Amino acid sequence: MPELRQDFFTKEWVIIATERAKRPEELVTHRQVQPPPAFVETCPFCPGNENKTPPEVLRVPAKGDQWKVRVIPNKFAALSSEVQPARSLQHLRRRIDGFGFHEVIVDSPDHSRCMAQLSDEQVASVLNAYKQRYSSLSLDHRITHITIFKNHGVDAGASLQHPHSQLIATPVIPSQVRHRLFEALRHYDDVGECMFCHMIEREVEDETRVVLKSERFVAMEVFASPTPFATHIFPLRHMATFGDISEMEIIDLARILRTLLAKIYVGLENPDLNFTVRSAPAEYTQARHFHWYVSVIPRLTRVAGFELGSGMFINTVLPEEAADFLRRVSIEKVNAAAAGR
Amino acid sequence: MPELRQDFFTKEWVIIATERAKRPEELVTHRQVQPPPAFVETCPFCPGNENKTPPEVLRVPAKGDQWKVRVIPNKFAALSSEVQPARSLQHLRRRIDGFGFHEVIVDSPDHSRCMAQLSDEQVASVLNAYKQRYSSLSLDHRITHITIFKNHGVDAGASLQHPHSQLIATPVIPSQVRHRLFEALRHYDDVGECMFCHMIEREVEDETRVVLKSERFVAMEVFASPTPFATHIFPLRHMATFGDISEMEIIDLARILRTLLAKIYVGLENPDLNFTVRSAPAEYTQARHFHWYVSVIPRLTRVAGFELGSGMFINTVLPEEAADFLRRVSIEKVNAAAAGR
Repeated sequence: MPELRQDFFTKEWVIIATERAKRPEELVTHRQVQPPPAFVETCPFCPGNENKTPPEVLRVPAKGDQWKVRVIPNKFAALSSEVQPARSLQHLRRRIDGFGFHEVIVDSPDHSRCMAQLSDEQVASVLNAYKQRYSSLSLDHRITHITIFKNHGVDAGASLQHPHSQLIATPVIPSQVRHRLFEALRHYDDVGECMFCHMIEREVEDETRVVLKSERFVAMEVFASPTPFATHIFPLRHMATFGDISEMEIIDLARILRTLLAKIYVGLENPDLNFTVRSAPAEYTQARHFHWYVSVIPRLTRVAGFELGSGMFINTVLPEEAADFLRRVSIEKVNAAAAGR
Repeated sequence: MPELRQDFFTKEWVIIATERAKRPEELVTHRQVQPPPAFVETCPFCPGNENKTPPEVLRVPAKGDQWKVRVIPNKFAALSSEVQPARSLQHLRRRIDGFGFHEVIVDSPDHSRCMAQLSDEQVASVLNAYKQRYSSLSLDHRITHITIFKNHGVDAGASLQHPHSQLIATPVIPSQVRHRLFEALRHYDDVGECMFCHMIEREVEDETRVVLKSERFVAMEVFASPTPFATHIFPLRHMATFGDISEMEIIDLARILRTLLAKIYVGLENPDLNFTVRSAPAEYTQARHFHWYVSVIPRLTRVAGFELGSGMFINTVLPEEAADFLRRVSIEKVNAAAAGR
């Protein structure tokens, strides 16, 4: 029997379509892709080509003049830090001059290894760079929201192959984020608790949707997952904004994020994928009603007219089956390869 | 200079990224696709194969035992009309048994001709079928929202080639729709007018984003368009729900919708595409604050991590340029072919 599930947080309904149900294996695309080389002479993100990018805003140094992670302004930035966010309103047409920051985080010097194949320590360096840039840009009083995200693969929007992440800082809080903050606030006012803390506690007890758990984080399939294998990683400690993550938590998150990505890489055969850090805006740092998380979204299906026309999604994979599938995936080979270099 | 634009209705911000700007022609994919045959023996929607589908719920008859349009239950329905919408809530996990209707509207007996290539009269028959099913299903007190949509092409979610539309009727109002109704209501309460009527009047005066205008409808590029060439067709008369469309309006809408689709078909070389009827739920039929429309969305770009992580979109085509481009496209050849059969 099909089922409608409501997300506890966005309040959006999802159709879990059991009549069209697919086993997780059926979503694998089985693309034969040649693994890319470790170094590409024309790649602007490969070592030695640092002059092909704008001057870096952050470098995590390695031995000598080498680096582990670089952060640079996006050469084809969607927003410009050179203009001021002047507003105008004419009839119902509201505009702001395109002020903002658009940065690229180069995940490692190695062109060939996606994040699933990096060492936990390298991923921690990347997360550290996220945090430094998040904290630094949050200080700009013109910035109200920062989105950190990764596009892996062409279908996920990646235009350059060399593994990298991105950050876009905007002078507006997205309407979608406002709605979510409002729903979370309403729950807090009604019940006197962070709805995420409540949900996390119950899901950890219940176990059926939990994929991985560590001392400080839990990765779980989403109860009302709009698409197959949408997985959220929550800090167990209440924190509204990503900027509050501690050093120990970064180390723990690096391990759980990397392990999850490796399980998806092996189990679903390296699908195109996005992940994004879903944080409250920095001004909410003390908020009791919001809880940041990392949302990992493998791009296994296409959005069609129903989704565009209603905002509701049809998901053909039971989240409980997705969790079971991911729990069983062994990532020994990926780990051995990551340790071997 | 890039620009942030806020949609007057959803309140969502869009980045119009002029640094990454593309001319409309650059979005054409230039796929060489063999035109499909007019009849396919194995196609369940082709004439003669009526027994391969569930029994039809509506038929627009043609000569003899032929038909112009058929409406049938979806064989792989996302929801089932056989169950009752029983609700349950456990902790924060809210579910409803998967009650609903999922129907297919076969646009014409001809396997080869997409809606852009049909006659205006045939499209009017399809819209009439939409209206009949919309009105009929609205009478079911368990149904609260109906989404009518079309998927054209694989990237737009179409799994069968024979041109068809779909309808999904749900026992819930999507959260996204609720938010939009609320924003429109707030405008009505503040200003005492339908925000759509206001916007339509100004856009028609302004002309820069208008693609087509008829006696009863206007097709325009969206001021804060999240993706290139997102085009809305509004009735000029205030109407909250699609079910209130008159016979004359159906004839007029058929012409303007078909003309718009033909312009996209010719100008952008038959891109994958969705369209959807955005109506208030039937219970809002008398509402003064909402205004239904048809949203046409060519699928020319990929959604990436920023969009998934913030709800904001980056659009690389200026809506004003898209409107100018579509206005200039000649559809004489398509019209001649449509009239010739």
